Amino acid sequence: MIETLSMKPKLPVAVIGASGYSGEELVRILLGHPYVELTAITSRQYAGKPLAEVFPRLAKLPKAEKLQFVQADVTAISLVAEAVFLALPHGVAAEYAIPLIKQGKRVFDLSADFRLRDPNVYQEFYGHTCPAPELLSLAVYGLPEIYREKIRTAQLVACPGCYPTSILLPLIPLLQRKMLDPASIIVASLSGVSGAGRKTEVDYLFCECNESVRPYGVPKHRHLSEIEQELSIAAGQPVTIQFVPHLVPTNRGIVSTIFGQPIGGPVLGTSAQAFLAEVTQTYQNAYKHEPFVRLLGDKRLPDTKHVIGTNYIDIAWRIDPRTGKLIIMSAIDNLIKGASGQAVQCMNIAYNLNETLGLA
Amino acid sequence: MIETLSMKPKLPVAVIGASGYSGEELVRILLGHPYVELTAITSRQYAGKPLAEVFPRLAKLPKAEKLQFVQADVTAISLVAEAVFLALPHGVAAEYAIPLIKQGKRVFDLSADFRLRDPNVYQEFYGHTCPAPELLSLAVYGLPEIYREKIRTAQLVACPGCYPTSILLPLIPLLQRKMLDPASIIVASLSGVSGAGRKTEVDYLFCECNESVRPYGVPKHRHLSEIEQELSIAAGQPVTIQFVPHLVPTNRGIVSTIFGQPIGGPVLGTSAQAFLAEVTQTYQNAYKHEPFVRLLGDKRLPDTKHVIGTNYIDIAWRIDPRTGKLIIMSAIDNLIKGASGQAVQCMNIAYNLNETLGLA
Amino acid sequence: MIETLSMKPKLPVAVIGASGYSGEELVRILLGHPYVELTAITSRQYAGKPLAEVFPRLAKLPKAEKLQFVQADVTAISLVAEAVFLALPHGVAAEYAIPLIKQGKRVFDLSADFRLRDPNVYQEFYGHTCPAPELLSLAVYGLPEIYREKIRTAQLVACPGCYPTSILLPLIPLLQRKMLDPASIIVASLSGVSGAGRKTEVDYLFCECNESVRPYGVPKHRHLSEIEQELSIAAGQPVTIQFVPHLVPTNRGIVSTIFGQPIGGPVLGTSAQAFLAEVTQTYQNAYKHEPFVRLLGDKRLPDTKHVIGTNYIDIAWRIDPRTGKLIIMSAIDNLIKGASGQAVQCMNIAYNLNETLGLA
Amino acid sequence: MIETLSMKPKLPVAVIGASGYSGEELVRILLGHPYVELTAITSRQYAGKPLAEVFPRLAKLPKAEKLQFVQADVTAISLVAEAVFLALPHGVAAEYAIPLIKQGKRVFDLSADFRLRDPNVYQEFYGHTCPAPELLSLAVYGLPEIYREKIRTAQLVACPGCYPTSILLPLIPLLQRKMLDPASIIVASLSGVSGAGRKTEVDYLFCECNESVRPYGVPKHRHLSEIEQELSIAAGQPVTIQFVPHLVPTNRGIVSTIFGQPIGGPVLGTSAQAFLAEVTQTYQNAYKHEPFVRLLGDKRLPDTKHVIGTNYIDIAWRIDPRTGKLIIMSAIDNLIKGASGQAVQCMNIAYNLNETLGLA
Repeated sequence: MIETLSMKPKLPVAVIGASGYSGEELVRILLGHPYVELTAITSRQYAGKPLAEVFPRLAKLPKAEKLQFVQADVTAISLVAEAVFLALPHGVAAEYAIPLIKQGKRVFDLSADFRLRDPNVYQEFYGHTCPAPELLSLAVYGLPEIYREKIRTAQLVACPGCYPTSILLPLIPLLQRKMLDPASIIVASLSGVSGAGRKTEVDYLFCECNESVRPYGVPKHRHLSEIEQELSIAAGQPVTIQFVPHLVPTNRGIVSTIFGQPIGGPVLGTSAQAFLAEVTQTYQNAYKHEPFVRLLGDKRLPDTKHVIGTNYIDIAWRIDPRTGKLIIMSAIDNLIKGASGQAVQCMNIAYNLNETLGLA
Repeated sequence: MIETLSMKPKLPVAVIGASGYSGEELVRILLGHPYVELTAITSRQYAGKPLAEVFPRLAKLPKAEKLQFVQADVTAISLVAEAVFLALPHGVAAEYAIPLIKQGKRVFDLSADFRLRDPNVYQEFYGHTCPAPELLSLAVYGLPEIYREKIRTAQLVACPGCYPTSILLPLIPLLQRKMLDPASIIVASLSGVSGAGRKTEVDYLFCECNESVRPYGVPKHRHLSEIEQELSIAAGQPVTIQFVPHLVPTNRGIVSTIFGQPIGGPVLGTSAQAFLAEVTQTYQNAYKHEPFVRLLGDKRLPDTKHVIGTNYIDIAWRIDPRTGKLIIMSAIDNLIKGASGQAVQCMNIAYNLNETLGLA
Repeated sequence: MIETLSMKPKLPVAVIGASGYSGEELVRILLGHPYVELTAITSRQYAGKPLAEVFPRLAKLPKAEKLQFVQADVTAISLVAEAVFLALPHGVAAEYAIPLIKQGKRVFDLSADFRLRDPNVYQEFYGHTCPAPELLSLAVYGLPEIYREKIRTAQLVACPGCYPTSILLPLIPLLQRKMLDPASIIVASLSGVSGAGRKTEVDYLFCECNESVRPYGVPKHRHLSEIEQELSIAAGQPVTIQFVPHLVPTNRGIVSTIFGQPIGGPVLGTSAQAFLAEVTQTYQNAYKHEPFVRLLGDKRLPDTKHVIGTNYIDIAWRIDPRTGKLIIMSAIDNLIKGASGQAVQCMNIAYNLNETLGLA
Repeated sequence: MIETLSMKPKLPVAVIGASGYSGEELVRILLGHPYVELTAITSRQYAGKPLAEVFPRLAKLPKAEKLQFVQADVTAISLVAEAVFLALPHGVAAEYAIPLIKQGKRVFDLSADFRLRDPNVYQEFYGHTCPAPELLSLAVYGLPEIYREKIRTAQLVACPGCYPTSILLPLIPLLQRKMLDPASIIVASLSGVSGAGRKTEVDYLFCECNESVRPYGVPKHRHLSEIEQELSIAAGQPVTIQFVPHLVPTNRGIVSTIFGQPIGGPVLGTSAQAFLAEVTQTYQNAYKHEPFVRLLGDKRLPDTKHVIGTNYIDIAWRIDPRTGKLIIMSAIDNLIKGASGQAVQCMNIAYNLNETLGLA
């Protein structure tokens, strides 16, 4: 864009836990962001090493050359950063969020530590005590299309998981308008391997994933906790859904295929078209001005290769007049719209910047 | 080979249309079959070329060295073969089946031409007239676990499609026992690219499939016709299901994840375990002696890499006590249990051979 | 970059043949270029279709929304473009270059039509007459690190092939300084499948490339013609080399591993280190200020994943004191530094823009 | 199996270290071998678990059902096995070989512990003392095409590495006949990821290998030690070669592309054809009766997909009349002809069985 960039000072930003796949992607996006100055990146493992050595792909991005990994020291980071991204494991993120929040920093957390409003649900799904229940009331769920206004002023943004993003954006408008029977919702998702992070476990070795397709986390994947929380809010009633994720041999990308029954029962034969039109209208109303939602409607079907490397979510839908059910399909890049891109989108909102900066 | 085989004469067999992925796999299996003599393989494209040149992988299998592709001439083939496999496109297979049947040959057809009992359904799903309606009454649907006795004496075996195999075997026992509500059935399947055949279309180029995941054929994939036919028979009532296939970047393998609701409604909380036990018992009763069905139960989940290269179907199941729904997951090699292996299994049955010959 | 963009008017640019992999990548880069206005994109196959429909990945790049594929009409294109990129097959490119040159346009051709100075060599390697020998004297070989000054004023830039870029940049400085014996040069290259273009041939189907590794084009691949032409110029004597490309199952990326013997014979034992130091110094002198050449030296080895999506070439080198030979290894993204990125780099030079614009 | 096998008693065999990729492949082959009884499989990690649970792909092979992993106890194994395969890391294998040899067992070792005749070379390349120098004189290098007669009576067979197999078989006949200048030999190899074993290191994670191509082990890969030992024997003089392996994203398969200069200097122009004919004749003489060597000659080029799953090595060759050099290309399945298949081939020879048993 040929914008005449104003003299606006740059926002100093740090990334704590920058060595995983989401962290790497965050660094890439922030280095290319015209109003951000990335002042610190941390990694236990790589502390002392230049960014260029650890992530050669990013070596010559503007200002990448002088960046070096450091140990995560909250005091030191507070001196150089205004906004802090946490790309840390569940349970660990809170340790850093607590002091940062106290020092008045704005925190964008990519872990699950602040996504759930109810600490008991956290305990149920994550198997350990919610690490900072006192901060939950501060946290805003970082789904810009739904919580944009709250994100503007939030001090703590809990960025959604990858599967939840791909499922919530298609479902929320329909549940808000009470178009689908919540009890009928079934989701099958397919994810690339980067969703598992840079974990050195046998299951994620090349030879174990290549030429392999497998369901996992059945029937109670952790992400159900935030998915059901947000669907319940949208529906105005408790929602429990069925969700089965599958691991497929790609680096990136998630497809979620969602099945649901119209709230009044199957829409068979000719009533199918009327319902379909209503769905289309609902999506148009909800998302037509959204910069990162692409409505494929009933013409095309999503394909991860069309969203990889972007912050878009592609959404398509079909009605089956034989069963009277609705099928919605979405695709995102799990590391961008499903993690780091969405976090930066939230940061843009929080700092009153053009929401697409760094993400086009 | 050192083995002193018993004096049993070998069965002379031909494969018409041996140049596609299923045809190649058929040839591989038949060449390794101790009681089969593969006497003719046909291909328009490769006629005149030695097998060893077209499929080097198979070049040194016993007797592969003298095999050569020929044009498909029914009269000539009838002279050298007793059983004939057709691995041809829909609509073309019937042209060869008709004269072969007249000449008293046993035909194992891998196309869809004889799978549907109702020619109108064929027309509806395949977009052209059923090519040989007069033969439909002769045809037996080649799913050995369900139709073994009929296959023994069938002259025409219509071998099931790949998706149908992965969906029918898990569902039929439960529908026969009226354990699932047929209207609740939803299936998401994931298939490797060989399912599309050796078609030179842009969609199946390496760079279009690699790092790509996509649903297709929504909402009315052709395979629904045979799936619903067989489920209806099992349930004793018309069954219409929801089915969404996805293309994933592997050469082989299908995973089908099937969702269904117990017929009396959701089995929540403690009643879930009782229902689960009943499902397990039903599968044990149906399949415990089946040589190619592996019941993973509630301990493991299927993974295509554990079935690729084999004629097995792996089936696992879980109950979700939160939703009261049943989740069944299966995995097969689409070219073997989903096509050529199953066809040979049928042939073994039809000729009263040990059902696993050539397939272990 | 926070550059205060000047009021500079944008350069109107067209891409003829924008539907292949290189064309798509060109469009992506040009849409993100701050001083370019992409005014026309052509494709026989897609004429009439919006860019957003054909390449959804690019749909929301600035100004992508109004772009539509048109038929390639030189007169019409001349009215709206100052610089024209040709991403067409060999032999076809010249048809468009001739009239465009006549009309005073600057042409950046990605085909082989203008890379060779001798039309007989073209005939020898491409099997048909050189399509526009009269233009050869106008053409500049578009390797910026070698021909930057000539590119500044060239009207016709013949952008190098992908393999040649990966081989020439490592070798030219050493041959210019007469450090390697030209007759000793041997190159083994490994390329992703996009190098073959979007051709619907069986060889490039997913199932034929996945789990497959193969040499091809042995011993006389077409790219040898331009490689040897440029190496001969560098060496000041005719150079003939050995080159074997291999196809590997990735979408993108080329690694070239180059073997050569020091001109005075093997540098064994301790003299190896002195030679290595000289090589390092030569590369430093040649490339230390080059924005897109990264010298990995003797610390790291190239990996395509570190250059994919970028315009970089990574170069590493080792001396083997046991054999006295030099080993040089390079990696590029075949569609960027090996095609479209390099073409845009040439355009930046030709129009006196910052050479890295659109490419960082 | 229906076959009435002759009354020959079966050979009791054990595999120590059966949990890696080579070990798994060994188990698969041995379970299908008509004259072998696999009596014990060991694994520290899986001791106590049934084979069917660890390797579901093998679960229903004849006799797989009763097999269970045990701890590696030499005394116990000696009671149940006559021949023992060791699929253990370098340095560890010798610990088991020593007592087994003492007890008179025949040992087929897949590690490097016994491949090198000179313990100093072992120390130089493996960085630790040769673990059992006293056994080296007993060991026969298990390349059947070269050492068949010695293998017949060997008590200790040191099975070759994967790269060495792909390089030695093409080169030995030419060096034996003094057709190539040993100092000119350069090899570029490409290997699938299973060559690295089932190691949980970041470098072998799916996302680090997929869409990645990289050289490694430059310039002194460990396998050079055995390659140069065997080439020196063939040439009757010390041979040092250049070798660069590359990791490519496939599960299996190695391609080696070998460059060499005819011993009398380049064979340019017309003399090239005469040399080529001599090469062809040499290969025919050496390998025409070999069951697992396929000579592609100058018609086809090797492709790993044609050898994967087999014990074949495919070899092709070309002369380049422009450079006068010979190019030889080979392909094997690294886990079969490059490891476990070749070990079983050696066992067949050692026990006077048909050499192809279990391997067709």
